[in-house]
Amino acid sequence: MTEIEHCRILRFTAEGDETVEDAVTVEEPLTLFLNGKELVTLLCSPSYAEQLAVGFLFTEGIIEKGEDIEGIRCYEGKGVVNVSIRGNGIPGANRGSRRITSGCGGGTSFYRDQDLKRLSKVSSQEKFDRAEITALMQEMGRKSRLFRETGGVHSSALARGGALVLFREDIGRHNAIDKIIGECILSHIPFDDACLMTSGRITSEITRKAGVAGIPVIASRSAPTSLAIRMAKELDLTIIGFVRGKRMNIYTAGWRISGG
Amino acid sequence: MTEIEHCRILRFTAEGDETVEDAVTVEEPLTLFLNGKELVTLLCSPSYAEQLAVGFLFTEGIIEKGEDIEGIRCYEGKGVVNVSIRGNGIPGANRGSRRITSGCGGGTSFYRDQDLKRLSKVSSQEKFDRAEITALMQEMGRKSRLFRETGGVHSSALARGGALVLFREDIGRHNAIDKIIGECILSHIPFDDACLMTSGRITSEITRKAGVAGIPVIASRSAPTSLAIRMAKELDLTIIGFVRGKRMNIYTAGWRISGG
Repeated sequence: MTEIEHCRILRFTAEGDETVEDAVTVEEPLTLFLNGKELVTLLCSPSYAEQLAVGFLFTEGIIEKGEDIEGIRCYEGKGVVNVSIRGNGIPGANRGSRRITSGCGGGTSFYRDQDLKRLSKVSSQEKFDRAEITALMQEMGRKSRLFRETGGVHSSALARGGALVLFREDIGRHNAIDKIIGECILSHIPFDDACLMTSGRITSEITRKAGVAGIPVIASRSAPTSLAIRMAKELDLTIIGFVRGKRMNIYTAGWRISGG
Repeated sequence: MTEIEHCRILRFTAEGDETVEDAVTVEEPLTLFLNGKELVTLLCSPSYAEQLAVGFLFTEGIIEKGEDIEGIRCYEGKGVVNVSIRGNGIPGANRGSRRITSGCGGGTSFYRDQDLKRLSKVSSQEKFDRAEITALMQEMGRKSRLFRETGGVHSSALARGGALVLFREDIGRHNAIDKIIGECILSHIPFDDACLMTSGRITSEITRKAGVAGIPVIASRSAPTSLAIRMAKELDLTIIGFVRGKRMNIYTAGWRISGG
């Protein structure tokens, strides 16, 4: 299960041309079965397949907690993981992330009926120090080995009590976050008082995933979108963007951020 | 149909804190109906909805050509577009991009059965000059107004005969490319001798979309993945990555790139 492949490339530079061996990030399809029935194929980095499967099922609202899972079977090398759960999951739950089956709701930022049922205001009263956010984002950058070697992945991390407790890289922003949340569920790491860090942009899907998990803060090196901000306001979830050096922008629920 | 929203944010800098109006890129759900039946909801930038719908149907293998379309109806402000096509589209075609219904094929890079049917080697013998690729990538960067203002979008462009003929920005890499290809189909702009430019990473999904369209070259500022490279080799499609300044890496089908 290697995360890097080497391939021969032709490199053009101002100084001349050369044929070199270059490091490329590995992308592989992972087909997720639920109770033996094919659910979705995710294109992802080939690591932590079980965590990705569990995180996906949770953030897509198909399971509610780790206890819903009866067993996980990973067929390594085949790109297949089967998760057995009690019953068929939450009735009416989403089956596949981009196939969204409900129309747009009126007067709300949530574009799927089941989101309205699953999502409620984030209850955590946890506060976060801004100097801590700055330091954690720098630490995440230092850990991003696969990105430094290949330039082809996003990073995500979970921070609690001023420290990074989990760190994952994946070709997909969503996958990296699902791997974090899946690991939390499998290893009983609480996330309802944590800060979710990402190298990627904060879109509505990222905000929805954090909201389903009840995670109070999302911090990114990059930009949020309008819909992410609108959702986060409704959920009282803190969005921090452009965490670069000592700068950062607080878009929503700034009361959770202290220090100065 | 505005692409930028302004919102009040709290900005922390080393010099102090300030409350400012910040420009944020707009994200909206667009629900695509096919012959009156709901197909998929895409999260995208609110522009060129018809082009996005047509490009998506084409690159996902649901229509084969512009003549398959009988009518397009866009319900602006409701985030809905309906495309009427002859019949029900290509039999067995994919219905939604991340819900991939076939397992992994053996001995091929293509993870969906229908891709094997739709994809064949790129036939174009067109050559591209490397100095031209460098200049076009710089031009795309200069055009990326929405990115400069918000940091929240990807750019894509179509280059033919040494010039950028189309340019689009979207919160999604895939959407920006689908908007380009959809516009080509609706406006009868040939793309089988063109270079597809993108600010985003070249994953297998991007390569598959270009392959379905028969586009001979994809050039990116960013990295490709292993699966994208493997697909491109099978399709004899040229992948150029890390086009920055006068540098670039040629990963596959280098015979199309001339100059030096």
